[in-house]
Amino acid sequence: MSFENEIIIRNVNYFKPDGKVAAADIFIKDDKISNITQPNSGNVDAKKFSNIIDGHGKFAVPGFINAHTHASMTLLRSCSDDVALMEWLQKDIWPVEAKMKSKDIRVGAELAAVEMIKSGTTTFADMYGPNMEEVAKVVEKSGMRGALSRGLVGILNPEEKLATNVELFKNFNGAANGRIKVMFGPHAIYTCTLDYLRKIADTAGKLGAEIHIHMNETLDEIDGCMEKHGKRPFEVVAETGLFELGTLAAHCVHLSDNEIKIIKEKKIRVAHNPGSNMKLASGISPVPKLLSEKIVVGLGTDGASSNNNLDMLEEIRLAALLHKAATLDPLVVPATEALKMATEYGAQAVGIENIGRLEKNYKADLILLDMSGVDWQPCYNPVSLLVYSANSSSVDTVIVDGKILMEKRELKTLDEEKIIAEFKTCANRLTGYSYRF
Amino acid sequence: MSFENEIIIRNVNYFKPDGKVAAADIFIKDDKISNITQPNSGNVDAKKFSNIIDGHGKFAVPGFINAHTHASMTLLRSCSDDVALMEWLQKDIWPVEAKMKSKDIRVGAELAAVEMIKSGTTTFADMYGPNMEEVAKVVEKSGMRGALSRGLVGILNPEEKLATNVELFKNFNGAANGRIKVMFGPHAIYTCTLDYLRKIADTAGKLGAEIHIHMNETLDEIDGCMEKHGKRPFEVVAETGLFELGTLAAHCVHLSDNEIKIIKEKKIRVAHNPGSNMKLASGISPVPKLLSEKIVVGLGTDGASSNNNLDMLEEIRLAALLHKAATLDPLVVPATEALKMATEYGAQAVGIENIGRLEKNYKADLILLDMSGVDWQPCYNPVSLLVYSANSSSVDTVIVDGKILMEKRELKTLDEEKIIAEFKTCANRLTGYSYRF
Repeated sequence: MSFENEIIIRNVNYFKPDGKVAAADIFIKDDKISNITQPNSGNVDAKKFSNIIDGHGKFAVPGFINAHTHASMTLLRSCSDDVALMEWLQKDIWPVEAKMKSKDIRVGAELAAVEMIKSGTTTFADMYGPNMEEVAKVVEKSGMRGALSRGLVGILNPEEKLATNVELFKNFNGAANGRIKVMFGPHAIYTCTLDYLRKIADTAGKLGAEIHIHMNETLDEIDGCMEKHGKRPFEVVAETGLFELGTLAAHCVHLSDNEIKIIKEKKIRVAHNPGSNMKLASGISPVPKLLSEKIVVGLGTDGASSNNNLDMLEEIRLAALLHKAATLDPLVVPATEALKMATEYGAQAVGIENIGRLEKNYKADLILLDMSGVDWQPCYNPVSLLVYSANSSSVDTVIVDGKILMEKRELKTLDEEKIIAEFKTCANRLTGYSYRF
Repeated sequence: MSFENEIIIRNVNYFKPDGKVAAADIFIKDDKISNITQPNSGNVDAKKFSNIIDGHGKFAVPGFINAHTHASMTLLRSCSDDVALMEWLQKDIWPVEAKMKSKDIRVGAELAAVEMIKSGTTTFADMYGPNMEEVAKVVEKSGMRGALSRGLVGILNPEEKLATNVELFKNFNGAANGRIKVMFGPHAIYTCTLDYLRKIADTAGKLGAEIHIHMNETLDEIDGCMEKHGKRPFEVVAETGLFELGTLAAHCVHLSDNEIKIIKEKKIRVAHNPGSNMKLASGISPVPKLLSEKIVVGLGTDGASSNNNLDMLEEIRLAALLHKAATLDPLVVPATEALKMATEYGAQAVGIENIGRLEKNYKADLILLDMSGVDWQPCYNPVSLLVYSANSSSVDTVIVDGKILMEKRELKTLDEEKIIAEFKTCANRLTGYSYRF
């Protein structure tokens, strides 16, 4: 690693780790925040900096961390909605997924990367089918950060799938200047036998890899588990050893007190997906309780087929709103907490150190939001405005690992027009629909 | 009325009244949709049209109807959030409102108009304090459509307030080429005596005016009403005669079966405000039940102090998502229904005929959404994409009463920059905060 890179963002208001907002100059050297100072403090030798960004009227926050998604499912967006869950999966989703080839996975992930960068996401935790190396290549090319896992559905060829997750780990863990982390992705308790889960735990454990798994998403899942195993999902999985490795558990909608105890004891990190849980009518996760138990709760969009976008700002808002309505308590999940769920807690959830906070020596993963629009007026509290009022079209600049991926809404690493054109062709082939609009 | 105005939108996909999407040419003459034909059907004499709009890649839907807001409360956005309801009202909202002068009401409404037009709203039902004539003037100037009422809080000088609502009716009902409708705005059961409600019913009835009122927003309101009157709010108000005039009832969160019966019998129209009800932790309105009872349910943002924006597309999405989560039924409030709540049902809710549908002889109140962004890909179902994926930055063109208010996101009737500058000065004076950002 030898790139020379010095950026200064002058006179910007930023989201401090303590939840407050302050004016500052932010200095970036190579991949890190090298300093945060009072604004305009001391002389700055302009020649030293490859980029001087005027932060006036901007709000700097850590890049959003999408703690649970299936990026390439962008290909399935809008092909089926407002359908009952099993009909949706069996008739509309799985048959299309079965046709996906390596190129589709790449193109779907490329479109997802464009969408994520444009809405301020800098890191995503992805779990999907075969060809995850294509997603890894998109992470490399786009400049984003990714925690990638092969979705291990233990129904057909489980051994082969596990082998591809091992392959992915060996080829990509730590790649792209450390921007890629590889995890193991046992799909869920209803798609994996206990033997398979034990084998995954064993294999991942030997490599020092962490786990990304769907847990307790629907009542049907709980009922099925109770019927089959006589225990609830967290109780069953805890016995396989899987939770000893460091676990990111997506959904966690329906939880017993004992399961919350297991989550706490095993330091399991939760990826809360309010948009997807609402759209699929899965239910409402007890997030205020999890947070009060000091459990790490990040936010995820889930795939674009059940959300239907990858816009983390919407998840932040939904997290802040949904639990107030569900508990009838206007004080739960305040704006600062919701923003932390998408940043600092998200970093903890995906298990990547040194991201998610704007602080000296942290990775330079941050975004600038343009506060000039009417939805930011009057601007007394940028955190509240970000969480409750603005939309992601305010995302102006995106920096990951010290590199500018978008500036003034112009993408620097990806060719949006070309990606959309290629994406349309792939989507049409997969769904068999013609692209009317 | 003698303006010459012929617009054609060529080759556009539009939301049909039957919920389907079809390609068409849309013809506008003066204030009305004069025809909707197959695309490119027959020769069009370009010289006849003051505007030819290329609809390719655009989605035309009826302009959104915000069925319940307090426009000038934009001045209070972000000055207080994440605070318990009574503390919020008493310490942060009411003292600032008490300082509002005529100019503030105008400037707050002007900023609201900019925000509403930019997010696709063409009609709004507004209820606020004194100086509603200033809001009427903003409706005139902006080119929007408004159903305006004086908020009648029966605590101080109730007679004087009622007189200003009468004044507003006499001066502005039917003004601006019929774009202004004046309603009477009894605030709520907890702020009006029954005598006052009877007097309002009597006065409005003589003028042939309709009613806009807050109903059953919180559990406290119900409890207070039960304690004071021994009956629930709809039962009490029904006895005052107020519901005989045509009523728009905002919120309707907590409803007994008997109250739903009253709503149905009295043909009361509901303005559902999911964002505000969630943020203030008021609760979740039984919208799927109301819809199944064929009760008219429109959507509103409520004021920007409790939402915190005036973006109807967010309310559409929240309406579509919230009730699925609350009922655990993924089939309730499908995308088409949610979009109708913001358009056709919204028109019925505010009681304005001939808007809310794209159909020959309806008023030309419509918006064009740009479908070129990644959040619209792949584009198999524009209704689903609008409701579940896109955000309001896709709103490209806004037409009201046959007049273009925004084209390619450029406002035609309002000076955004000037309005923001004036707005900042007013907001600072009111809150006493300095405008740091």
